[in-house]
Amino acid sequence: MSALSALPLLSHLPQVTVAHLAQHAQVTAYAKREVVLHKGAAGQCLNFLLDGRLQGLDFTADAREVGLYFVQPGDFFGEVALVDNQPQPEYVTALMRSQVISIGKELIRPVLFAVPQLAEALCLRLSQRLRGVSEHRRILGLATPVQRVCALLVQMEKQGRIPQVPTHQELAIMVNLTRESVSRVFQLLQGRSIVERDGNDLLVLTPAQLTAWAEGAEVAVAT
Amino acid sequence: MSALSALPLLSHLPQVTVAHLAQHAQVTAYAKREVVLHKGAAGQCLNFLLDGRLQGLDFTADAREVGLYFVQPGDFFGEVALVDNQPQPEYVTALMRSQVISIGKELIRPVLFAVPQLAEALCLRLSQRLRGVSEHRRILGLATPVQRVCALLVQMEKQGRIPQVPTHQELAIMVNLTRESVSRVFQLLQGRSIVERDGNDLLVLTPAQLTAWAEGAEVAVAT
Repeated sequence: MSALSALPLLSHLPQVTVAHLAQHAQVTAYAKREVVLHKGAAGQCLNFLLDGRLQGLDFTADAREVGLYFVQPGDFFGEVALVDNQPQPEYVTALMRSQVISIGKELIRPVLFAVPQLAEALCLRLSQRLRGVSEHRRILGLATPVQRVCALLVQMEKQGRIPQVPTHQELAIMVNLTRESVSRVFQLLQGRSIVERDGNDLLVLTPAQLTAWAEGAEVAVAT
Repeated sequence: MSALSALPLLSHLPQVTVAHLAQHAQVTAYAKREVVLHKGAAGQCLNFLLDGRLQGLDFTADAREVGLYFVQPGDFFGEVALVDNQPQPEYVTALMRSQVISIGKELIRPVLFAVPQLAEALCLRLSQRLRGVSEHRRILGLATPVQRVCALLVQMEKQGRIPQVPTHQELAIMVNLTRESVSRVFQLLQGRSIVERDGNDLLVLTPAQLTAWAEGAEVAVAT
């Protein structure tokens, strides 16, 4: 009950509704690297991440992993299959030990569309994910590793900072590069004082320079 | 009024609401190749195509056009910017003479989220578009022209038929190829009796073969 009422999406619901949902919600623990949602599975639930960290991912035609998006605590996921009654479009796996709470489709689906704030929040999430995928498609079409990594960092940067920046390996699978290529780009970026580590975050010291590299402006100098 | 009430999305609304929307709706005619929505513009309206045909498109980093989706009569478009109050994410242009009816954001946005059937239809559209972009990203990552064209046709095929099949030029800009490459793939497909023209439609005679080519199975034989 208290776990559900703390979720941003459900904060607009009357307490009695949350209590009812809580009675039928299921909490599951996942180990690191465990699969939370399988691609192609029927979307039976709307899921919320209580704690931990998840990643949506898929595989290329030649079987390489492509990271698609991250799920942070409080976020919901699995909403696309829930909405359109089609199979789950991608894998979701645990990047660390994670706890997930799931509410059955037959219970949550009517509530989602009947409460305007929930419908709006769901549309907002779908729109954001749509923009994310579109941007991702654009990034995958960029020519050089420098451009791809910089474009990805530009996408993640908010007010000069990337909170909880993914590992080089995680970034690599998002932009279809090797871990080594990503590390080389980071050496360049740190050498030029364009980015700098700050604990788990990455500070972007000169966002304009990062954007210029993403656009290919100084690739000749950078490589 | 009659134009609005014929639109699938608005068919769930009471007639009095449709009449009110109709009073404030604006009809605009577009010539072939005219831009209907500009990328980066503020999303002021929800738009519906009354007649004609539109295409959502964007440009790659090296300024080549990429076709994203088609808009058919009765469809709505411009919904992403309307939902998230961010700039329009891509261009929408007229592929032929087209008529568009637009309803102002302040009028339509509350209705969209307040009526469950509309909220569901909007979520469904966003989910479909999300799946389309994800699939498109996957197709762009395929190695050969044969694979890309076949994968695109697989995506468009419904029950052995692709209604109103796009031109080779239109298909080419969707999968980042030249018109000539697409025509060569069509010669192969028609030579093997995998597809066949039927007026404005394309018949897919052997869908399994088309899928096999999309997956690269017989590319060595095909090229």
